[in-house]
Amino acid sequence: MNREEARLMTTRLTYGMVGGGPESMVGPLHRNAIALDGSACLTAGVFSGTYEKTIMTGLSLGLPEDRCYHDYHEMAASEAARTDGIDFVVVVTPNNTHYPICRAFLEAGIHVVCDKPLALTSGECLELKRLSDEKHLLFMVTYTYMGNVTVKHAREIIAAGEIGEIHTVMAEYPQSWLARPEDIGGKQGVWRQNPDIGGRTNALGDIGTHIEYLTGYMTGLKIRFLLAKMERAVPGHVLDDSDFVMVRYENGATGMYWASQAAIGHTNGLRIRIYGSLGSVMWYQENSEVLTVAKSDGSRVDIRRGTAAIAPKAAKYSRLPAGHPEGWLEALANLYKSYASCLHAVKAGTFTPDRIEYPTVDDGISGLRFIEACLASNESHNTWVNF
Amino acid sequence: MNREEARLMTTRLTYGMVGGGPESMVGPLHRNAIALDGSACLTAGVFSGTYEKTIMTGLSLGLPEDRCYHDYHEMAASEAARTDGIDFVVVVTPNNTHYPICRAFLEAGIHVVCDKPLALTSGECLELKRLSDEKHLLFMVTYTYMGNVTVKHAREIIAAGEIGEIHTVMAEYPQSWLARPEDIGGKQGVWRQNPDIGGRTNALGDIGTHIEYLTGYMTGLKIRFLLAKMERAVPGHVLDDSDFVMVRYENGATGMYWASQAAIGHTNGLRIRIYGSLGSVMWYQENSEVLTVAKSDGSRVDIRRGTAAIAPKAAKYSRLPAGHPEGWLEALANLYKSYASCLHAVKAGTFTPDRIEYPTVDDGISGLRFIEACLASNESHNTWVNF
Amino acid sequence: MNREEARLMTTRLTYGMVGGGPESMVGPLHRNAIALDGSACLTAGVFSGTYEKTIMTGLSLGLPEDRCYHDYHEMAASEAARTDGIDFVVVVTPNNTHYPICRAFLEAGIHVVCDKPLALTSGECLELKRLSDEKHLLFMVTYTYMGNVTVKHAREIIAAGEIGEIHTVMAEYPQSWLARPEDIGGKQGVWRQNPDIGGRTNALGDIGTHIEYLTGYMTGLKIRFLLAKMERAVPGHVLDDSDFVMVRYENGATGMYWASQAAIGHTNGLRIRIYGSLGSVMWYQENSEVLTVAKSDGSRVDIRRGTAAIAPKAAKYSRLPAGHPEGWLEALANLYKSYASCLHAVKAGTFTPDRIEYPTVDDGISGLRFIEACLASNESHNTWVNF
Amino acid sequence: MNREEARLMTTRLTYGMVGGGPESMVGPLHRNAIALDGSACLTAGVFSGTYEKTIMTGLSLGLPEDRCYHDYHEMAASEAARTDGIDFVVVVTPNNTHYPICRAFLEAGIHVVCDKPLALTSGECLELKRLSDEKHLLFMVTYTYMGNVTVKHAREIIAAGEIGEIHTVMAEYPQSWLARPEDIGGKQGVWRQNPDIGGRTNALGDIGTHIEYLTGYMTGLKIRFLLAKMERAVPGHVLDDSDFVMVRYENGATGMYWASQAAIGHTNGLRIRIYGSLGSVMWYQENSEVLTVAKSDGSRVDIRRGTAAIAPKAAKYSRLPAGHPEGWLEALANLYKSYASCLHAVKAGTFTPDRIEYPTVDDGISGLRFIEACLASNESHNTWVNF
Repeated sequence: MNREEARLMTTRLTYGMVGGGPESMVGPLHRNAIALDGSACLTAGVFSGTYEKTIMTGLSLGLPEDRCYHDYHEMAASEAARTDGIDFVVVVTPNNTHYPICRAFLEAGIHVVCDKPLALTSGECLELKRLSDEKHLLFMVTYTYMGNVTVKHAREIIAAGEIGEIHTVMAEYPQSWLARPEDIGGKQGVWRQNPDIGGRTNALGDIGTHIEYLTGYMTGLKIRFLLAKMERAVPGHVLDDSDFVMVRYENGATGMYWASQAAIGHTNGLRIRIYGSLGSVMWYQENSEVLTVAKSDGSRVDIRRGTAAIAPKAAKYSRLPAGHPEGWLEALANLYKSYASCLHAVKAGTFTPDRIEYPTVDDGISGLRFIEACLASNESHNTWVNF
Repeated sequence: MNREEARLMTTRLTYGMVGGGPESMVGPLHRNAIALDGSACLTAGVFSGTYEKTIMTGLSLGLPEDRCYHDYHEMAASEAARTDGIDFVVVVTPNNTHYPICRAFLEAGIHVVCDKPLALTSGECLELKRLSDEKHLLFMVTYTYMGNVTVKHAREIIAAGEIGEIHTVMAEYPQSWLARPEDIGGKQGVWRQNPDIGGRTNALGDIGTHIEYLTGYMTGLKIRFLLAKMERAVPGHVLDDSDFVMVRYENGATGMYWASQAAIGHTNGLRIRIYGSLGSVMWYQENSEVLTVAKSDGSRVDIRRGTAAIAPKAAKYSRLPAGHPEGWLEALANLYKSYASCLHAVKAGTFTPDRIEYPTVDDGISGLRFIEACLASNESHNTWVNF
Repeated sequence: MNREEARLMTTRLTYGMVGGGPESMVGPLHRNAIALDGSACLTAGVFSGTYEKTIMTGLSLGLPEDRCYHDYHEMAASEAARTDGIDFVVVVTPNNTHYPICRAFLEAGIHVVCDKPLALTSGECLELKRLSDEKHLLFMVTYTYMGNVTVKHAREIIAAGEIGEIHTVMAEYPQSWLARPEDIGGKQGVWRQNPDIGGRTNALGDIGTHIEYLTGYMTGLKIRFLLAKMERAVPGHVLDDSDFVMVRYENGATGMYWASQAAIGHTNGLRIRIYGSLGSVMWYQENSEVLTVAKSDGSRVDIRRGTAAIAPKAAKYSRLPAGHPEGWLEALANLYKSYASCLHAVKAGTFTPDRIEYPTVDDGISGLRFIEACLASNESHNTWVNF
Repeated sequence: MNREEARLMTTRLTYGMVGGGPESMVGPLHRNAIALDGSACLTAGVFSGTYEKTIMTGLSLGLPEDRCYHDYHEMAASEAARTDGIDFVVVVTPNNTHYPICRAFLEAGIHVVCDKPLALTSGECLELKRLSDEKHLLFMVTYTYMGNVTVKHAREIIAAGEIGEIHTVMAEYPQSWLARPEDIGGKQGVWRQNPDIGGRTNALGDIGTHIEYLTGYMTGLKIRFLLAKMERAVPGHVLDDSDFVMVRYENGATGMYWASQAAIGHTNGLRIRIYGSLGSVMWYQENSEVLTVAKSDGSRVDIRRGTAAIAPKAAKYSRLPAGHPEGWLEALANLYKSYASCLHAVKAGTFTPDRIEYPTVDDGISGLRFIEACLASNESHNTWVNF
């Protein structure tokens, strides 16, 4: 490496954000995750519905006034027109606005990162895919947990056949955010129980899709049929807060998913257990420094992030030595790490699709199809529907 | 207490056993559990299908030859005829023989303890109930885990409203006994995968009924509808080895049960989690010295058997100081403790039904109805059936 | 096996008990542990300081009046004189009476089981050893935890070199029984804080000796020097309730022991961790169904009692299938199992010392030497003393 | 807030780094931690002993060439002379160079952050304190773990008397980094076993000082006497790799510390348990999302970061919702957060010492005194020395 090459490494990507204003929970987390590795610099944004809030947020984040926009249309147009316009946009707005915003930036030729669920219908998702394909733009959907090193290790050993043929998947995502009737009036409740904002589902779309995506990522299994029961466990809820889904995969295996936002005792308890003919794998988000692998002799092995036992393809996403816990931000940062690396490759003309190690618009489509299939099953008396 | 009263305490109950010979796993465990407290003395038995095995077992257990019988008919008749005949019989034979054996002893006027599942059909169970009612005999079905002190504590605090209105029950019973195809040829496999012996179900009858009974015991909830998917996860299995059951309780709550004998990583992993409007309760059989109670402020409290935190009705079943683990045998012994205490009361003419703190023939009936409803649902494409 | 041999199996051993009356905590537990396997039958006893209490206890346990004795002298003499006298005596009295009682029974030619600490001085212990050697009597000291299957498995794999050369041992035994000043007035407190009864030490003798014995049993290491700090953590205590001991083993390894009865948060928290050049072993009494073995690649393996992963010499002490928890009583019962097996061999003339798989009078001596060395170190400003 | 105020929030602090070049483990972690919140921007540095490596690192981090310096003397002088010179320097070099480098920057009037142990002798530390006092400069020593939210919560509840009077502290910091003889030749080994670089101690200075600091921070207790045994557990080690320290606090309580880099089975196992007259507190770095509080009724409560149960003074350092794990970087970032906040206050003329919520040069002094006292005790046959 000579000095010129070293300097080139500093050519940081730039990004804009739609959402992430004063009331946003997830927006600042995305900014922190991107900052963690310095993957990109924030240089533009529409952070709020009111321009004054946007400009206050923007200024406090170091943006010049002229890159704090009134709305996403203006932002997409202006940034596309600048020679130093943003490389990509991060969309962290309420679910019902994902589609038009993503569409606007794609049409303007700007790469897009969007939170899940990607849109309100799978049709919208397909349109986003069509657009991004047409424009050759990279589209990431932020299913955070695939960024966990131990998740990636699980995927590696399962693909290598270490647990044999999978016959059962038990997955659950219990939270307690909306467990008390009074939570409905709170910030989380308003947002999450309003069909106009969140769509036709709450818990299923918000956290159930994480299960659907992550089990697929870890196991490689495809869902063929599913049967869903969507419940409102807390009095006063108008949308589902506790969902039960049975799935049948293409290989004949059975899966059982549970997503709940009414489960006192859990904060963010995503847990995936995968049972095969030769062993099983157990992963728990709240203790994600460890992956447990069970052997057919009755013993259980705890594999720890950062140790020699982790597969190279997973280990490369570690930052800290073993025992120095990495957490949720590192998982999200790992998505941006791969996305940024692909964008650099696009710029350098060296991009090929096999470089992608982040969830794409295809995964976003699958999430909406999952929601739609669950709604269909639930509405037809919890009977099996095709996926 | 004077000497006469002290001496009276020694008037031990006597029992006979059907089953529990050289190949039996569960027979010796029942004998050990009874011996633990000295609740009763073994004085008669038919331990095996071959008389020679029965007499060898009997002699090695200290029985005289004349109380080692050729078959249960002879035993029931002879013991009923003796003035010092057995107080009760323990039936620990294969499932398909429970009904005729229990019936024979009831008809002979002898109290009965029988392993679960109680019979092959709910009709048989009803007949056993009719007989035991008619003859005023005490009938216990050995759902072992209700004997756990922490299970009883859970029941107490739930009944007292500590977790509010229950909306969700998550229960599972994963084991790995039949996880490998080669396990089919083993002792467990032959027995558990033979419809002629075990009936129309394997995992569901063997361990699924434990879930059905124990969740009912802990929560007081009644099942109204259920929907079942019964799987054969291991190649070569002819009966179910992995079962998924959704239930709807009478109060509108939802339950999700999973029973599997193909789940590597688990040995006897019965786990019950009960979610209410004010808190939740989590119990795990393999760590049953502790009950976890979650509060709506996000904290979790571990309540330990033997400490001051345990409710009196549960605490009276403790034998050892806190931290000196009690286990499976103590749980089973607690069933026999209550049963023996009731038999003593019957003898003393002081028995009333509210003394019963063990699972009865009614629970046995419920278990078979559960099995039958699951089979019906499974056969009609996993649709809802009445319970 | 023919009928005669089967009958012979029923030739039960008989035992008497000194202690174990209405106020005793540990006496009933020993009776339960012996009953668990039917290793021996209780046929004689002095259960209390008052004859009336003894006879009440005896009668309620099924003894005839003539084998309920006024004192241990009478009992030793009478039982030795009977042709059907007890095979062995179990001594579960306060510490200060162990020596004279054991001595009386040895002199009468009766085998002895005694609780730990064996006596008040190592000199007394040596005398008991001399007597038992002279009379060819079997002497067991009930260090309960060596009976745990997972402890035995640890010993096996350490002896086999699986963790290499041991360099560090971390052992602790925290309890909370005497944690509050008001506990002093309670049953435990009176007994445990009275030097006239318990000797010159409380926690060290009561639970510290368990550490000393068990670490030696698991590792095979011998202590060469030690340094002790004995504390009274709770106001009002006159004897130690929290003890810290550094040890240097003959092989140069270092050990650190902590025994406390003032540690809120622990009930019976005996924990042993053994670090070697190739791996380490971690055992925790309150979760003793599992042994954790750490590997130099950073992974940890949980080995479960009852599975195929347990070494044969340990596995033979299992009663229940994996996942059906065994507990404290089973551990104690395993001591009696080996002791009874050795007594049968003595009777049959086939006994050889290599059959012994229980703690002996030598271990009792070692316990007292440990106490004496700790007292010496503590009194000389916590300096090193020879062991 | 008006626009001017919003803009002012963006007046980022700037910092330089000494150390943190291509071979550094800890340097990049400090940069990441600072970036996490955007607390400060890196604008200058000497990253390596060779200028070429420094400039390569600097360029790749976005620095201009003229702020990549040949050595720290040049850097201190030049930065002090610039009007836009760095606000503070971060020193992450080998232990033996901390003192001269810190001294140089203090003399140049620049605020200093330095890794621990702060210097090689307490005398050097005192000199750094004298200088920083004289120049009114803020000096932070990076004892990372005080940044953990759960550590701060423990401090709050202990200070509020929730566990009563503390009588016992059990603290340990086992790692396995140097567990195998071959590790000596590795990167970690060379550095950590070379007295010329690390000073007269390895494990004690490297990780033992974390225990000394953190127990003091959590409990408020002051050490009065200590007794140390410093071992070399791994053949070939010339400096201590396993240290045992008994301490007596001013209030009469006893502490037991263990630090080891030879303990297979642990990665970064810092664990602190604090026992009081009313309860106890248990904290474990590798699971630091949770703090366990034990009550005198025998129950244990798990308090989780991010929930309502966390004290406000601790809760303000949370970034993520409960159940979204924060880790090691967040803990370190929290130190920088408080440091940056104090620096802003200094600039605004509003600084007062009660704003300090980070470890200072006084804590650095204490660390060296601890090392020196341990060495003195170890060299005088493990006898008590004053602290």
